[in-house]
Amino acid sequence: MVQDTLNLQKSDRLTTPLASIITIGDELLIGQTIDTNSAYIAQQLNTLGIWVRRRVAVGDNREDILAALREESLHSSILILTGGLGPTADDITKPLLCDYFGSRLIRDESVLTHIEHLFEKVYKRPGVLLERNRKQADVPDNCTVLHNPSGTAPGMLFIKEGVIYISLPGVPREMKDLMQTAVLPYLEKNTTRPYIFHKSILTCGIGESMLAELLSEFEQSLPNHISLAYLPNYGMVKLRLTAKSNSATHLKEELHQLAQQLCALTAEYLVTDQDISMEALIGQLLLKQNKTVATAESCTGGLIAHQLSTVAGASAYLKGSVVCYANDVKEKLLGVQPTTLLQKGAVSEETVIEMATGAVRVLQSHVAIAVSGIMGPGGGSPEKPVGTVYMAVSDGERTITQRLRLGFDRARNTHQTALFALNLLRKFLTAP
Amino acid sequence: MVQDTLNLQKSDRLTTPLASIITIGDELLIGQTIDTNSAYIAQQLNTLGIWVRRRVAVGDNREDILAALREESLHSSILILTGGLGPTADDITKPLLCDYFGSRLIRDESVLTHIEHLFEKVYKRPGVLLERNRKQADVPDNCTVLHNPSGTAPGMLFIKEGVIYISLPGVPREMKDLMQTAVLPYLEKNTTRPYIFHKSILTCGIGESMLAELLSEFEQSLPNHISLAYLPNYGMVKLRLTAKSNSATHLKEELHQLAQQLCALTAEYLVTDQDISMEALIGQLLLKQNKTVATAESCTGGLIAHQLSTVAGASAYLKGSVVCYANDVKEKLLGVQPTTLLQKGAVSEETVIEMATGAVRVLQSHVAIAVSGIMGPGGGSPEKPVGTVYMAVSDGERTITQRLRLGFDRARNTHQTALFALNLLRKFLTAP
Repeated sequence: MVQDTLNLQKSDRLTTPLASIITIGDELLIGQTIDTNSAYIAQQLNTLGIWVRRRVAVGDNREDILAALREESLHSSILILTGGLGPTADDITKPLLCDYFGSRLIRDESVLTHIEHLFEKVYKRPGVLLERNRKQADVPDNCTVLHNPSGTAPGMLFIKEGVIYISLPGVPREMKDLMQTAVLPYLEKNTTRPYIFHKSILTCGIGESMLAELLSEFEQSLPNHISLAYLPNYGMVKLRLTAKSNSATHLKEELHQLAQQLCALTAEYLVTDQDISMEALIGQLLLKQNKTVATAESCTGGLIAHQLSTVAGASAYLKGSVVCYANDVKEKLLGVQPTTLLQKGAVSEETVIEMATGAVRVLQSHVAIAVSGIMGPGGGSPEKPVGTVYMAVSDGERTITQRLRLGFDRARNTHQTALFALNLLRKFLTAP
Repeated sequence: MVQDTLNLQKSDRLTTPLASIITIGDELLIGQTIDTNSAYIAQQLNTLGIWVRRRVAVGDNREDILAALREESLHSSILILTGGLGPTADDITKPLLCDYFGSRLIRDESVLTHIEHLFEKVYKRPGVLLERNRKQADVPDNCTVLHNPSGTAPGMLFIKEGVIYISLPGVPREMKDLMQTAVLPYLEKNTTRPYIFHKSILTCGIGESMLAELLSEFEQSLPNHISLAYLPNYGMVKLRLTAKSNSATHLKEELHQLAQQLCALTAEYLVTDQDISMEALIGQLLLKQNKTVATAESCTGGLIAHQLSTVAGASAYLKGSVVCYANDVKEKLLGVQPTTLLQKGAVSEETVIEMATGAVRVLQSHVAIAVSGIMGPGGGSPEKPVGTVYMAVSDGERTITQRLRLGFDRARNTHQTALFALNLLRKFLTAP
């Protein structure tokens, strides 16, 4: 059901260049480093209409790297390698590339000058160039050197039997700079590609399988060159339409119209048709309405306020929060009535309403979110089992509430609660 | 410098089982999802003495998945697959596994019962099982079903021509649960591996390269079968000693003695010699000392309180927090003097001291942490650039403070601040 245009049919593959990404380094194989380079490279190639067919990670081992080069050249016509080029790793990769491409190492004077310049001007270490550093200027004599503006290891481009090989350093910033300044311009000029456009919308409060059910007719009615992907993430589902064609005419308009249909079909669950996060969307709404927000949090322990604060510039609308894990804090700082706590309990609709209105009053915000619940593993009772959460959003006059019954573990219950609380705030702010 | 025994020499490979990890999903190839599953699986296999030789990511495409199975079975004797098992993706992977292993799909009644149970008890949606959900109970008739306690897609284990194939769902939590409850116990029992023991200690406040400098003599004195790995993570560095041998005799004692040496050498930065988190350690200290804690947070927006609240049972010692993003909240709720804010600024030692003592008074806790800083990208000035943070820990009588100068982006500055604040609290609680 995850049908992506980019999940190409065989016939499409004839017109779409296929790429493999090979990452080199033991740290990827012992789980020490999470590979973020591959995701970046894939995104960038995708934007250009190049489909990444495979990503392979191998260790700092000559035979394994050679095997990866041989095998991937059978799968793809573009191979991007990262890693294996640092000052302590040189000894394996470059001689191996020489063997594979039938070349010998020569010292590139312009690379050497660049390295000397970096050590003097950037690293502030003139005259301390070790032979290990100079050797970074050695390149196979049949490669095209790609200038690395931000580091000492140059990129290298080879062509062998119609396959393009590009070797990049593994340091994320250097890899990214080389992608932007050298690799993408080269591939744009030297490959034939279809046009590809994406359009995403964000939904909350409905699971992947129910959404697929809701959208099955829409999905079946899509033309062949447009597909829909379901991307669930932390209790929300992003829906992504992808259009691919050899002609760009009308493609964006067509995608735009289908996205509008999708918004209409999912209206009840639609968070935004922009490609932004829930927190950023709420920030936009608050700024537009010239309102401030505060939170009163029991079970989430401050997570909702923290999430609101992750948006740069949040100080323009976030007043603060009272995290009231203990009942006496609910009473003393937020003015929740002792009788409410006694008669209805800390986890009750009445309590969260008093918490929300109390937060508006005490933190002097236009609107406030309040949550109280039992996250587990302990603390449940037959009437209020683990996973019971009450939440309220109020401006002091108008108040909306919601009850949740979650069934996950402590960490996930907490994250879901924070997400649904933010979604309740969004609904409050967008209510007619 | 990252020397791990597990970075095996070629000769070791003869006795060490080799594994390949295959991740399935278009989202990995368009750069939408960063693959954290592979790192987790690699770590876990490593702990067991299994070396991950290759990691391969392929799309939701029949031919590409089949090619990956064929190729990796030539590289490794253990293949771990993740992804391709969700309720909207079923149509490709399982029929393909049937073709590859020569089996046919049958509905597994115990899996179906488990799915029904999950929908009723956890998702609170009895009677709404779609055929799409039921189909998750279909498994190839020649696989061993691995019970997935936390989700609807079961794990599947196959053996073909001496190679072990294990297919797991791609949802990180379900994958992790299945690794712990089924995969690792199975591999432990059914593969021959060298004895491997690990012992980790946690340090904070010193970088990886400085630590390596400090420990260079110790590292060089290690016997051949014991190695030291540096595992930097969120501003802390975990040091892991790994002992590997074909005989278990004395191995644990030897490791224990070396770990004690390591603790002595790093005493100034040592957080704990237990394998627990900073938050859990602080929880233990507070419980033992019968103390409660509160936080007063500006720039971290509630993150410190939230992190303290992630420990089950935290309500026994966490009173709450005042998140005071706005200055009027600092004054009104925490009693910070307007003159302090005016003369010293919100980001100053004087302000955080008043915030901390105010939190002790207002939230009636034994001890409180306060932080105020400039997280960026905006808000900096020549005297107080982005990354300037002041923090204080106080019990109302004794107060300790710290200033940070961080140089990362907003998100990382915030996480580093929360971590160093917790470390300052730990120091306060363990001071003689």
